[in-house]
Amino acid sequence: MFMALAGGVGGGKLAQGLATQLAPDRLMIVVNTGDDFVHLSMNISPDLDTVMYWLSGLNDFERGWGRAGETWNFMAALHEIGGPAWFNLGDKDLAIHVVRTEMLARRTSLSAVTHALCRMLGVGHKVIPMTDATLRTIVHTTDGEMPFQEYFVRRRCTPVVTGLTFEGSGDAKPAPDFLAGMTDEALRGIIICPSNPLLSIDPILSIGGAREWLLKRCVPAVAVSPIVGGQAIKGPAAKIFSELGRNVSVVGIAEHYRGLIDGLVIDTVDAALRPEIEALGIKVDVTPSVMRTAQDRATLAARVIDFASKIPAGSHA
Amino acid sequence: MFMALAGGVGGGKLAQGLATQLAPDRLMIVVNTGDDFVHLSMNISPDLDTVMYWLSGLNDFERGWGRAGETWNFMAALHEIGGPAWFNLGDKDLAIHVVRTEMLARRTSLSAVTHALCRMLGVGHKVIPMTDATLRTIVHTTDGEMPFQEYFVRRRCTPVVTGLTFEGSGDAKPAPDFLAGMTDEALRGIIICPSNPLLSIDPILSIGGAREWLLKRCVPAVAVSPIVGGQAIKGPAAKIFSELGRNVSVVGIAEHYRGLIDGLVIDTVDAALRPEIEALGIKVDVTPSVMRTAQDRATLAARVIDFASKIPAGSHA
Repeated sequence: MFMALAGGVGGGKLAQGLATQLAPDRLMIVVNTGDDFVHLSMNISPDLDTVMYWLSGLNDFERGWGRAGETWNFMAALHEIGGPAWFNLGDKDLAIHVVRTEMLARRTSLSAVTHALCRMLGVGHKVIPMTDATLRTIVHTTDGEMPFQEYFVRRRCTPVVTGLTFEGSGDAKPAPDFLAGMTDEALRGIIICPSNPLLSIDPILSIGGAREWLLKRCVPAVAVSPIVGGQAIKGPAAKIFSELGRNVSVVGIAEHYRGLIDGLVIDTVDAALRPEIEALGIKVDVTPSVMRTAQDRATLAARVIDFASKIPAGSHA
Repeated sequence: MFMALAGGVGGGKLAQGLATQLAPDRLMIVVNTGDDFVHLSMNISPDLDTVMYWLSGLNDFERGWGRAGETWNFMAALHEIGGPAWFNLGDKDLAIHVVRTEMLARRTSLSAVTHALCRMLGVGHKVIPMTDATLRTIVHTTDGEMPFQEYFVRRRCTPVVTGLTFEGSGDAKPAPDFLAGMTDEALRGIIICPSNPLLSIDPILSIGGAREWLLKRCVPAVAVSPIVGGQAIKGPAAKIFSELGRNVSVVGIAEHYRGLIDGLVIDTVDAALRPEIEALGIKVDVTPSVMRTAQDRATLAARVIDFASKIPAGSHA
């Protein structure tokens, strides 16, 4: 069994590829919920939705998030009456938010809600929120602190980031299935998806015990770099790495994950940086890593599984 | 100034006609909220919405409720995932529910929410919920008690009605503007729209002091019969009247409102019943009363205003 740690679009894409290679009982995907927020009195979990949509095949392949064939009549009506239109909610997508909100209001856990939504969407693989507790990513910027969606959507990632904190991480426990997966004897490897390390993976690792578990893992852990050729495939990873004085390259990714991973998958365009990563005690697999097609996703997923299967655990030590 | 008491479709239609005849400061429309309910964690006020849509011109003229050019992609997605699809929520219509829910969650009163929504929709006339408290119409049937929407939408009015109660009416006070309107010296008349007397008007009158105010009114009150030719123009009024052993005719409407109105507007098809109504001490105006077009609505509204203006108040006594 493999456990993937995932954020939104990059996570959803690789998760979809992994799901083509591994049966439902051989893959669990632990998803960031630090981006979750309450908007218009609805509980919205953007990364969980993105991953579920990719796994269900309902996803919009071009946009990366949301549903294919989506319509925006709700948003148009909301905009017309002067309602808050900065966060896009598709008409079909709303069904998920409304059902989730309703179930959470009845005190169903986010894990159980997610399980129910997966069944509703025909997703067989296990999608798990990182925690059932409330954990919120706060972005510290030169314009002040702001919740993640404020930074990411409303301000379009323009403020200069000075740091990140994960509000509630002190009290947050891993979701039951995440915790069970950590100690599952069937676990063969951990795969960190090409999601933003700071915004999508760090929140998962900020939960009580998660980082320690990964540091002391007895199964291999590999990551797929979200940085290719010095640029983020999607999102503000490169911008934030730069603003925080990090190395905006696969080497910066390797430095960030040092101690947490045994291997890093980097794109062929970054092949020359292999020695620098290996010098950090991290094994490297070089392969085309930009997922444009279903074939790309399946091929990369198979390669990552193979890489994780052959690498010795704790090789970083 | 005139005050209209209104339910949904019949109320919305006459309100729209009245709004063509009276300036915004000369008309207030008090609307039934006994049908309001929480569905999918959203606060839904069907009659308020219907009246607001009619006054804004956004209404669907054919269907009578909801918005013109509505789309149903949310419902289709909800249905696909097995969500509760018995209550139809249009994509555009959702904007209103979401904004209302959000505002109520912030402890804004329903009056203030409705005022804000009217502004957003460009409605200049005053639309007032009957109360800011929670009052719920309960339908007693041979199948047991059920909330209004359960009876009306889910069960399509099929259960046999044995009675109606208005849960919360003991504690409910009239909304501030309704209360102010009752004692406003500028008030010249009260118009009861052709809404269901039992399901739409009785809830309004069940609120503390409302029935007593209407009984002791010092301005004329007139009603427009929702029964024409022994049938309800829309909805289950005739069916319920029959099930409760009432006279299913304009005479039954007159008997129901006896003491509460000075005049009743009946359709020309019911002209022969005029003496029976007059025998109850209620003046009668006979005119085509089925509102199919904008011209119908304006003509009927003008006629009703004229009737109310000329009739002496308390002529029932």
